[in-house]
Parts: sequence; structure tokens; C-alpha cells
Amino acid sequence: MLVGGALAASAAGLGTALTPALARSPQQGLPALAVGATRKVTIYAEALPGNLYGYGLAPGQATVPGPTLEMYEGDTLEVTLVNTTNQRLSIHPHGVDYSTESDGSPLHASFNNPGETRTYTWRSHEMTAAAGRRFMPGSAGYWHYHDHAMGTDHGTGGVARGLYGALTVRRRGDILPDKQFTVVFNDMQINNKVAPDTPMFEANLGQRVEWTAIGHGSLFHTFHLHAHRWADNRTGMLEGPADPSLVIDNKDLNPGSSFGFQVLAGEGVGPGAWMYHCHVQAHSDTGMAGLFLVRNADGSMPPGAQEAIDRFHGHAHDPAAAAAAQPHGHVHGG
Amino acid sequence: MLVGGALAASAAGLGTALTPALARSPQQGLPALAVGATRKVTIYAEALPGNLYGYGLAPGQATVPGPTLEMYEGDTLEVTLVNTTNQRLSIHPHGVDYSTESDGSPLHASFNNPGETRTYTWRSHEMTAAAGRRFMPGSAGYWHYHDHAMGTDHGTGGVARGLYGALTVRRRGDILPDKQFTVVFNDMQINNKVAPDTPMFEANLGQRVEWTAIGHGSLFHTFHLHAHRWADNRTGMLEGPADPSLVIDNKDLNPGSSFGFQVLAGEGVGPGAWMYHCHVQAHSDTGMAGLFLVRNADGSMPPGAQEAIDRFHGHAHDPAAAAAAQPHGHVHGG
Amino acid sequence: MLVGGALAASAAGLGTALTPALARSPQQGLPALAVGATRKVTIYAEALPGNLYGYGLAPGQATVPGPTLEMYEGDTLEVTLVNTTNQRLSIHPHGVDYSTESDGSPLHASFNNPGETRTYTWRSHEMTAAAGRRFMPGSAGYWHYHDHAMGTDHGTGGVARGLYGALTVRRRGDILPDKQFTVVFNDMQINNKVAPDTPMFEANLGQRVEWTAIGHGSLFHTFHLHAHRWADNRTGMLEGPADPSLVIDNKDLNPGSSFGFQVLAGEGVGPGAWMYHCHVQAHSDTGMAGLFLVRNADGSMPPGAQEAIDRFHGHAHDPAAAAAAQPHGHVHGG
Repeated sequence: MLVGGALAASAAGLGTALTPALARSPQQGLPALAVGATRKVTIYAEALPGNLYGYGLAPGQATVPGPTLEMYEGDTLEVTLVNTTNQRLSIHPHGVDYSTESDGSPLHASFNNPGETRTYTWRSHEMTAAAGRRFMPGSAGYWHYHDHAMGTDHGTGGVARGLYGALTVRRRGDILPDKQFTVVFNDMQINNKVAPDTPMFEANLGQRVEWTAIGHGSLFHTFHLHAHRWADNRTGMLEGPADPSLVIDNKDLNPGSSFGFQVLAGEGVGPGAWMYHCHVQAHSDTGMAGLFLVRNADGSMPPGAQEAIDRFHGHAHDPAAAAAAQPHGHVHGG
Repeated sequence: MLVGGALAASAAGLGTALTPALARSPQQGLPALAVGATRKVTIYAEALPGNLYGYGLAPGQATVPGPTLEMYEGDTLEVTLVNTTNQRLSIHPHGVDYSTESDGSPLHASFNNPGETRTYTWRSHEMTAAAGRRFMPGSAGYWHYHDHAMGTDHGTGGVARGLYGALTVRRRGDILPDKQFTVVFNDMQINNKVAPDTPMFEANLGQRVEWTAIGHGSLFHTFHLHAHRWADNRTGMLEGPADPSLVIDNKDLNPGSSFGFQVLAGEGVGPGAWMYHCHVQAHSDTGMAGLFLVRNADGSMPPGAQEAIDRFHGHAHDPAAAAAAQPHGHVHGG
Repeated sequence: MLVGGALAASAAGLGTALTPALARSPQQGLPALAVGATRKVTIYAEALPGNLYGYGLAPGQATVPGPTLEMYEGDTLEVTLVNTTNQRLSIHPHGVDYSTESDGSPLHASFNNPGETRTYTWRSHEMTAAAGRRFMPGSAGYWHYHDHAMGTDHGTGGVARGLYGALTVRRRGDILPDKQFTVVFNDMQINNKVAPDTPMFEANLGQRVEWTAIGHGSLFHTFHLHAHRWADNRTGMLEGPADPSLVIDNKDLNPGSSFGFQVLAGEGVGPGAWMYHCHVQAHSDTGMAGLFLVRNADGSMPPGAQEAIDRFHGHAHDPAAAAAAQPHGHVHGG
């Protein structure tokens, strides 16, 4: 969601995303907002079927991942967390500024007991000058938030069961996307699902799509997207010919890390049901894979896409086959 | 190979590499090529001794890794893959542009059945302007290609048995190397070999050497090169004093990732039999190590190098010793 | 230590650090030193209680990690290593220049036998121009040194037992810190300790603190620091608005890798007992966590900090609880 009164549903688990309501066309740049605006959002932590938990923007609307929260550098977000569950839990952000009482950790007694409501304040800031023509970084980044209190003092139980989401802090002037997707590699699952039930994200050819990738759990992963590539920097785009950034299509996605980038759907490659997956072979083989459906520019289905989707749903994701493919007769999950 | 009619043998597994036939001296920059040239290459997938498979540029010449393929941004490469084996297999590239029929995955029925010949088209593009003085990245990078169909729908069997190679896309103006080496960390092996049978790469003091490192399999690794270091950016070199890139000599090399860099052999350190190895202790101890032999500038052997090579070949690489060195009495492979 | 005749104690394991004696205020920039100074340091490798080994700057003063060594680009450091133990051991640096006899590896017979003294020479260099307006990187970086000979030919035994430390090479003009901390993730421990015995690093609000993080052993890790973030580049700071670097608060820290950054203690977030920890859930839960105590600017304790410290010391770090929090009933150490 772009925090400013309007909401945008998270794409996560749904395969769809609304353009942030305040967004103008990317060519127009960002709307003029006052620096340092303070906004309030209420988030409901709820139990979900399948032994999951989720965060949601209204009662009964919790999802895994939770809603994408957005700020501009300089903004403050007051997050009122309503714990509707019978578990101790919290919300802990990455990247932004908070005092110890908003840390979201039992270390600082910063959590919600069962049934409790508590407000966490997340601030952000712009780049500031330091000595030597260097600058202390601003808050802009593709960050994330997660529970830090359920199960253990590090929230291992809450994170494992779905209490996580994306937190995007934009620098003024950043290009806004048409669509936003959140992909969380969490132990052997994507958004707590296994193929073929993993999210199918959708966009039309040429739409500017923003991916936020988040790692959780206790295993290592690499995120790979077919037929699209991005710069391994703050925006995924280059600043020009002298920008030295690596261009990649596969990146480590390990617990607690996150990154984001924008691509033009199907740019240079055309529409189709493109795969994204963990490139650790034992992980992709056993279900850490999903689809990025790039439709034709008019929203119609491109040739072959439905056949690919059908294949994906018939796809074995068979641990026994995966094990047999290993030359050493052993599948190592980590 | 520099795709332009002339071939350069892959260094991989052989410890030698030819300078690309079209390359001029690095000081002269790149040869003037037309933008958007389309070139054709035929690759033969073959069974090899030791339950391996390889790609090669002519019948009977398959190697592990396969040949290094090169393009300039804007070029198109038409890869005709001849499957001489009795297995389903394919060729899937990273970094470049392809439509779904050239994806190389069973998802798109894009593979070669046993005995089948199929053409895959890989395109590339230069950086293009976007809004906000940002640029969508071009295709330049140290990429790779691999099977995506043998054993599982992710090619786990083919990748494990040697069906992989380097794919280099250059930006016009990039400095060309004198020699090229490909190092693939694939489960507990390097180029599907274990020390002391891992590749010994060779160069003369001061030669510009280009390394492409590729990760495969299901384990995590870190690539370390003794006595040489590089910038963690697109080229391994800096753009000048304001280039903020990290300079490193050890980098994560996990499944599906690749990176490359150029060094001057022995720069500032002199000739010798320098080690490269996985820095995961349990991996280096059990054979993920090799040699980079930097000869004197005239090609003669430097003092002590032969002794080091001899020691390397007598080197225990003993799993029992490795296990005993662990304080917790346990070697964890991942 | 800033090698220049004066010593600065390592923060590691002690939670305190002295400002390098030659350091001026960060606003004044670096002292004017001659390029290419050669300095000598003697390091004593010693056995320590608990089956550990350490490096120290004087007899009886070995610590885990060893002392932080510093150079400016262009300097040479002559390290005389005195082996007071009954084990074969060595000292091998990352990032700097050395000939094969100073490699610190058995491959080059470059180690100290029990009781032996040996001198290793580490050189460094500034950035040098190459063709095409590119530059070969200088030596500046947050590097490290470690044993490469105890237990195995890769020093697995020595590294596991504490023979490691930070090596910082500065570019002229770099901002000097007020305090320096070294954090080593080594298998399931931090600086060979487990919470609550892990280091508590201390600084006053607003002090410029330099962290060097180093990975060792055979497991993968991610380093997370609460309430502080840094640019993922050479310095942790930005060069200005066009610096494309990612800003992060969580980074992979795998064997053989190191990185460093400077933060202003408590900047934008205030004082408190902030956590740093491995973000791999099974690792933080079982003790890979510590505290960064940011005191008030006058050095007094901020409200709530002592309570947090007390909680940390009572903190379960209970493997059984950690296992129970996993949805799959399994804690994977790697």
C-alpha cells in the first residue's frame, strides 16, 4: 500500500496487485508530498487456516505475505498492531528508524501479548552529508517487516508461519511501478506455499513491474527470474554508462535479506508464462518455483501460455525424482 | 569462443585458453562490429566417460565445462543444439533475451529429445533510457548456460553431470583479455573434478586474465583466489576514484549465480602457483581447490612453483583429517 | 591497531576500542603519511584456555579475534609471527599483496613449525590506471587474516579455534572512526562465543563506529544489526545522490568473506541496547546474537538499557525451544 489514505492490495499469494492509488504515470515522477508526513495504519495479526498466521489491513483480511507498506524518505509511519491471536507476537521492521520501544523484540519488552494492541513508530530520513564529501545513507530501500516474538525471542515461530511482508521506502524522484509483487523464500516454501500452489504473478507486456524478494527461515536460497534481468543496485536500473553495477538474473536470498528491482514485463523477450524459482536444484525440484505470466499488451493470453500453466500444474515436483537426479544419491536441503 | 567465425578453445578443464581470434590488444579496444549481428553456432551434447555429459563445438569434442560463448550487446546468437545422447536435455542461458520457445525448459516444451536437433535463439541488447535519468540495463555480463531438462524439469541431472558453460556478453569498449578461465563450483566439485585433478590454469606474469565463476548444484560456496583481488562490479575494475564498488578476493558462488572479473596475472605479487579454492573449510579440505600457475613473463617456471605443484598433487584432501580439525567433530557439507 | 608505532586495542571480545593513536578527528581527514612506509609488527600465536588459540601483540596478550591491523594503501607491513604453541600454524592475509613465501600456506611451505618465528611481508598499492578509462583496484578494504596451516592445509583447525582477526586497508582521505568492532561468525559462534557470552560492543550516542564483519567455518550466515543501516559499498557511506549502492541492514557473511562499514551510533534512533545477530533463525535462536550498547552522549546509561541487558543474560537461547518453533520440527544448522 502507498500510505496516504489509499490502499493497494498486496500481490502476494493473489497474483494481482493494484497500482498505488497515489501513483501517477512513471513519466510524471512522484507526487509532491510534504517531507516528514506522519501517517497511521492499523494492522491486524490473525490466525489463518493451515497453522498459518498473517498480517492484514482490516479484520478478516490477513494474508501471507502481509500488505506491502510504503513510505517516502522522511515520512513516519505509526503502525498500530492489533493482536487477535492467542500468541505473543510483534512487528519488527528492517531499514527504517525506530527507538527501542518500537524494536518489536522481547529484548525490549516490545511485543503484543495475546489480544493486546500496541503502536510501533517507524521513522525514515533522507541522505545526510558527512565529512569528506561522503553521505550517510537515507532510508530508501526494498525492506521488509516480520514478527520477532512468536515461538522464540527471534520470532522463529511467527516468521515460519507467515508473519512477514514488504516495506518499501522510496527516494523522491524514484519511478513508480505499475504493479508490485512480493516473493518470500521461507525455508522450502515460497510465500508459505509449494508448487504448483505458489503465486502466479500477472502483468501485461511492457508494464513496469516491481519485485520485492525477501528471505526467511534457516536455509540458503538463490532467486532466479527467467528472461528478465536487473542491476544489482538500489533501483534495479542503471544511472548511466558509468554506473558500475553488476547486472544479474540470479541473486542470493538468505534469511533476513531483501532486495527489489523493476523490470518491464516481457521487455525484449515477449509475453509468456515465465518461471521464477530458487536455483538451488534440490529446492526448485521440490517445489520452490512459480510463474510470472506476462500477458499480451491488451491483456489477452499469448500463444502457449495456457499450455505452460497446465504443465506447471501437472509438474511432478517429486522429491524422489529430485533425489535420483543427484549424482551422489543425496538431496541436501541446505 | 568469440562468436565471429573464429573459435577459441575453452580453458575449462584444460588449463589453457586461446586469445579470442578477433581480439586486438587491450589497448586498442574492441574491433568495430556492426550492431545486431546474427551468428550461428552448433553445439553437440555428448555422453562422456565417468557418467558425465558435455557440450562441444564439434562432434567428439565435448568438454566440462562447455565452450565459452561470447557476444557483444546487440548481437544475436542462434544455437543449434545436437543431442547425440539417449537423454532428454536442453540449453538454457542466463542474462540474454529469448522467447519462450528458446527457454530450454520442459515448461515450454523447449528441449531436445534423444537424438533430436533444435535451434535456440539468444538475443541481447544495449542499455536503454528510462524515465528519471535512469536506464534499463543492457545484456553485458559474465553469464552462463546450462541444461534445464535432464533428470528433472530443472535439469538437475544434466547440471550435476557437466552440462554447463560460460556465456560472456560484452559492452562495446570493454577491455578484452589475453586468457579466459571458467571455474564452476558444482556441489562438492570444481568443473566436476576433485583436487588434485581440478584445473590448473596458466598465464604468464602480467597477462590480462579473465575469470568467470559459476555456481551449480545444491550447496553454498565461496570462491577465493590467493594474491589477487577485484572490484565487485560489472568488469572487476573501477571506473575511477568515485566508483564505490567493494574490492574483494572472496565471493559467494551459489547455484545459478555467476560473476567475472579481469586481473593481471601476478600483479604486485609476482609469479607462482597460486591457489584458488572454496573458502568453506569443509569444502576446501575435501578437494574444492585448484592452482593458478603464474609463470614468469617469458613463460618459464618461477622458483618454487614446481615444488608447490608437487605438494598439491600429494596433498591429502582427506575427509577424515578435515573432520578431525572441526572443533565440534562434525563436517557439514552445506 | 593503526600501524605507525602506536597501538589500538582490538574491540573484539572486549566491547571497547581505542581510537587509533594517529587518528585525528574525522573532520580533519587522514594524517599526512609518506606513501610506501614500511612498518614492523610482532604477533604472538598462543594457546588459550578452552582449547582456543589466539594472536596477540605481546606475549600473554593473545585474544580471539586477534588485534585489528591497519595500513594505508601503499604501505608495507612486516609481520613477524612468533609461534609459542606446539602446533604448526601460519598467518594468511586477504586483500593485500604478498609473494608465495608469505602466502601462509603449506602449499608454499609458508608456515611456522612449533616454536618457530617467521616473518611474512604484506604490501599494498593504490589504484592504477588501465586501458579504457578503467582502473585496477587498490588494496583498500575491510579485509582479514587467519591461520592457513593448523589441522589441515587450509587451517581449518586454527580458524575453528580462534586464529583470525581484522585487517583494514584505508585509502587516503577515508574518514577515521572513533571506535572499531570486529565480529566473526565462525560456525555456530560469534568470536568463538555463544550468547549471552558474545561481545557487548559499546559506544556513546553519535560516535562514529566502524564494524568489520568476517565469516569463517563451514556454515552460511547473515549479519543483521538492529536500527542501523549502511551502504553496501567500500565505505558504508554514499558518494552522493548518483551512488547506486544498495542500502542494507542484513548481509551474507560466509566463510572467507568480510565487509566493513561506519555508522553513527544511535543515529536517528537514539541510545539503547541494540541487537546484532545472525538472521538465520536456527542460528540466532541458539546463541548467535549479541548487543551493541549505545550509551547517552555523555556516557551514561539510557533508560531501559540495563533491563535489556539483564533480559539478554537470562535469555534462553534454547535449542529445544528453537526446534519447537520450526513448523517442520527440524532445526537445520546450515
